[in-house]
Amino acid sequence: MSKVYVAGVGLTKIDEHWWMSLEYLMTEASLKALDDAGISRVDSIYVGSMLSPILQEQSHLGALLAEELGLSGIPAIGVEAASASGAAAVYAGAREIESGRANAVLVVGVDKMSDGMAEEVTAAMMSGERQEYVGFIGATFYSINALIYSLYIDRYNVGQEKIALFPVLCHEHAVNIPHAQYPFKIKLETVLNSPYISEPLRRFETTAIADGAAALVLVNEETAKKLDTPKTELIIEASTDYLTPFQREDPLWFPAIQLATSKALNRARLERGDIKILELFDATSIMAIV
Amino acid sequence: MSKVYVAGVGLTKIDEHWWMSLEYLMTEASLKALDDAGISRVDSIYVGSMLSPILQEQSHLGALLAEELGLSGIPAIGVEAASASGAAAVYAGAREIESGRANAVLVVGVDKMSDGMAEEVTAAMMSGERQEYVGFIGATFYSINALIYSLYIDRYNVGQEKIALFPVLCHEHAVNIPHAQYPFKIKLETVLNSPYISEPLRRFETTAIADGAAALVLVNEETAKKLDTPKTELIIEASTDYLTPFQREDPLWFPAIQLATSKALNRARLERGDIKILELFDATSIMAIV
Repeated sequence: MSKVYVAGVGLTKIDEHWWMSLEYLMTEASLKALDDAGISRVDSIYVGSMLSPILQEQSHLGALLAEELGLSGIPAIGVEAASASGAAAVYAGAREIESGRANAVLVVGVDKMSDGMAEEVTAAMMSGERQEYVGFIGATFYSINALIYSLYIDRYNVGQEKIALFPVLCHEHAVNIPHAQYPFKIKLETVLNSPYISEPLRRFETTAIADGAAALVLVNEETAKKLDTPKTELIIEASTDYLTPFQREDPLWFPAIQLATSKALNRARLERGDIKILELFDATSIMAIV
Repeated sequence: MSKVYVAGVGLTKIDEHWWMSLEYLMTEASLKALDDAGISRVDSIYVGSMLSPILQEQSHLGALLAEELGLSGIPAIGVEAASASGAAAVYAGAREIESGRANAVLVVGVDKMSDGMAEEVTAAMMSGERQEYVGFIGATFYSINALIYSLYIDRYNVGQEKIALFPVLCHEHAVNIPHAQYPFKIKLETVLNSPYISEPLRRFETTAIADGAAALVLVNEETAKKLDTPKTELIIEASTDYLTPFQREDPLWFPAIQLATSKALNRARLERGDIKILELFDATSIMAIV
């Protein structure tokens, strides 16, 4: 099994890109990643997107990106796993390298939320939930997060000011980051005084509607050796759970994260204590905390 | 690189399944395939679907199917490549075996078109085209096929009665096939007297709106040896082209098919003459002919 290396990274700014299409966003990120890797051709493409079939009625993003890049002919596939669609593209792309069938794979995650009204985007985000159980009763992504929030406050007897520290920290990290949507500090009071989206979840505890794309160039060991650019070995594992948190054994516990993390650490021969950077799912403050 | 074997196959009937959900369809096909393979567990799941995010506003089909099968915890990913979404799932699933990361993978293709009105389904089918170039001007999948049809008739000076033989042949093959939607013979006159969908394309030259799912269990060589059930080696290759036929060098020529077929034959060490069964994309009569 060939090892997988990240040879290039490309990011667009996260913003409301009114003047750019979905195609433009994923192409920009891809070109940056290819440029960063110092190569112009890949053997296949995987594009992850959650909302494009609903908000843009645009599917077939794999072939579309291949066309934009002048690479038509190579295999190119769209990948989807709700909020983890970009990660799923990395997962599937890594297998292509590991199988020995590709020397270099382009992996992209893209979504353009500003093409829909707030109601449409909120409805589209429910496509990652079970429509028949949860969507049909009118629950939204935010109301489900708010229920988890209430349960957490109740069980652990924590004040909202503790949980609302997470967006404050995120904004602090965003300062001087060129691709960040809101690269400035905010105060805890600003978060706590922002209006409710779904009680107790407040607006500043949620991410905004935004557009953007991120791309990686994955290569095998042989190609990695040929490239002058810095390379990082990639180890990726994935796991699933019941879609609806309230069908899980405990809505505040995510065994899928535990399982995938353990597998990845095991394969990397690392301990939990060796981890230097941890990136959390930050769509809402409470989800990062949980 | 491990070889890939098909250990089990499962199909639902192709029909208007008013009483069954999308989940039900893919679960039924999956259980049949697992039963056919004689195994109850797989290491990962790939689900191909083109229209479910639009017609059912249901994404995350990988995790959803894992949940339905009681397999939550394993990696499960949705895959999309327009009309080739099911095949793309087979492609990505095969890589998982080849990489040595999985012993057995469940691959499913599913769509449920009867959940939309004819207009909605027709619009949804355009998501595989370039919305900005072709969708926005009001073209449909069928009108694009009709343009190719006209070009073909014009260039090769062929009468419609020659092309309309294809659905007659398809219906003949469908007799006694339990999963076929319309398992009975039809006459050439029936096709030629059916109303136009988009001139010169007639209703009986198109496939009907229908629901169904198909599943495969893919296994590696070691697992294949352990199973008592019949196994077939799987060799799959893929290629892309410009999405819109009229941007291609010749709208009547599909280099992607030629490229992928050559690669697959080459890998299988077979010649064109060795092929015994050829299955054509049969959404419309003309596309099969081209």
